[in-house]
Amino acid sequence: MTFESRLKEYVQGIEDFLADYFQSTSCTGQSRIVEAMLYSIMAGGKRIRPVLVMEFCRLSCGNWEKARPFAAALEMIHTYSLIHDDLPCMDNDDMRRGKPTNHKVYGEAMAILSGDALLTQAFELASNPKHIEGIPAEAALCAIHDLARESGILGMIGGQVLDLDAENKTLDYSDLIQLQQMKTGALMRTAAHMGCIIGQASAKQLAAADRYTSSLGLAFQIQDDILDIEGDVQELGKPIGSDVENGKSTFPMLLGLLACREKVRQLTDEAIDSVRQAFTDPWFLVELAESLVNRRN
Amino acid sequence: MTFESRLKEYVQGIEDFLADYFQSTSCTGQSRIVEAMLYSIMAGGKRIRPVLVMEFCRLSCGNWEKARPFAAALEMIHTYSLIHDDLPCMDNDDMRRGKPTNHKVYGEAMAILSGDALLTQAFELASNPKHIEGIPAEAALCAIHDLARESGILGMIGGQVLDLDAENKTLDYSDLIQLQQMKTGALMRTAAHMGCIIGQASAKQLAAADRYTSSLGLAFQIQDDILDIEGDVQELGKPIGSDVENGKSTFPMLLGLLACREKVRQLTDEAIDSVRQAFTDPWFLVELAESLVNRRN
Repeated sequence: MTFESRLKEYVQGIEDFLADYFQSTSCTGQSRIVEAMLYSIMAGGKRIRPVLVMEFCRLSCGNWEKARPFAAALEMIHTYSLIHDDLPCMDNDDMRRGKPTNHKVYGEAMAILSGDALLTQAFELASNPKHIEGIPAEAALCAIHDLARESGILGMIGGQVLDLDAENKTLDYSDLIQLQQMKTGALMRTAAHMGCIIGQASAKQLAAADRYTSSLGLAFQIQDDILDIEGDVQELGKPIGSDVENGKSTFPMLLGLLACREKVRQLTDEAIDSVRQAFTDPWFLVELAESLVNRRN
Repeated sequence: MTFESRLKEYVQGIEDFLADYFQSTSCTGQSRIVEAMLYSIMAGGKRIRPVLVMEFCRLSCGNWEKARPFAAALEMIHTYSLIHDDLPCMDNDDMRRGKPTNHKVYGEAMAILSGDALLTQAFELASNPKHIEGIPAEAALCAIHDLARESGILGMIGGQVLDLDAENKTLDYSDLIQLQQMKTGALMRTAAHMGCIIGQASAKQLAAADRYTSSLGLAFQIQDDILDIEGDVQELGKPIGSDVENGKSTFPMLLGLLACREKVRQLTDEAIDSVRQAFTDPWFLVELAESLVNRRN
């Protein structure tokens, strides 16, 4: 089993699951909103978050399929946040991943509703007896709580609020760290938490998973900022230099490109060390971390 | 114990709970969004939905306090839906309950985020071990699932989608029923379901509670449509005649005012009969139903 083949197994697994879920959830009169939801959630993307849920579950208990409802729920929450973030009154983006954003295709009203629906259906899925059969109720509830907490005002939404406040202000390094830990780090952390919870990992493993995703999430964001400056517009799927243009505080702006590249390396090593100490042969997570460091998009 | 005093006990109970919850949930940098969330959720309102959760729990098992997290979660979901519904690209309302709408005070971006946050925190609350201690995990999970399902594309959001499609179209009676059952009925139904689930009601009681809220929800909506035509602008807190002005299909338009008043009476009687057959002396629900029929706002 190679890294690529396991990754493909996970991505296929989650995409099949999502397609089945929406197929079974449709009802009369809902085809337009389901279409809008699918437009965004099936628009590709690396699926890092659901992959982390499934891999941590596999590492914890040997089985990854049972984590799929939670992996899918997380991807739905990530997707809703992108739809709302792209809205005219928010980041006002017309393109994402090389395609028109949701509101450009379906209009603002439907974009708001499809975001709301993805967020709501995420919790419907994660608590649906048909999908979580075989998972102890306490574990499912614990995973749901983690997901909600990290998606809310102490997590992702909290980060978005800090981001709103930060427009055209220069943040210092600790502000930027806090913003990242909430706005993008929270969903990565809950991916690891949920995988461990559903896989009934030990407390030591849960702590290691948390450190892995905290470090890797920050590395991922710094790498994102680096790519915004030196990336290729076709590979990225969005214009380069947009951070600078938008007056957004970034890690390269504060630390410089050289220190950022070093920081990405250091954080990646920390992430890898964490999981090596708590899990047996976490080769996939090691390669995943390396691939994120070395990516060009 | 009179109707008014029990109602007051419930309303006070839920408002204290919500105030405590937001107090404990705040953290650095989040005061603005918490303020925006509180602006909308503490803006008054009858609190019908949380009252129903607590009363059905009390009728099922004698205790109502343990239903408070779920009652609060439902009120948060109801509130988020109002914030998003009022947005410029949706209903574009400047006033609600006699006060400026959320986006008029906080801006569109914060209104979208505070709606998203209320929806997310609702599920955080309903799964938070600190708040749901003493409730079996299976029951909490079942309540969460019901809440998510009735709030989503098969419930409230589904109704909002039908509403979007219905703009400036004349709906027939069965379309209007379906729209109501989803857009406004779903949250009333989940109120009853959750109260019964947390109170460990029998299947017969759950079915009766469902019928009560289905009938009462429809009566409530028809009464709303009647009041839009003949109500007093000060009591309503919003302009009268807005439905007609907006080209919205309503029950009086289809059936006429006289038949609507008769329908409201008939549905209220059905609701009352349902709960009398399954619960011991549901006097509060009887008076609640009557008060909704006789209301002028």
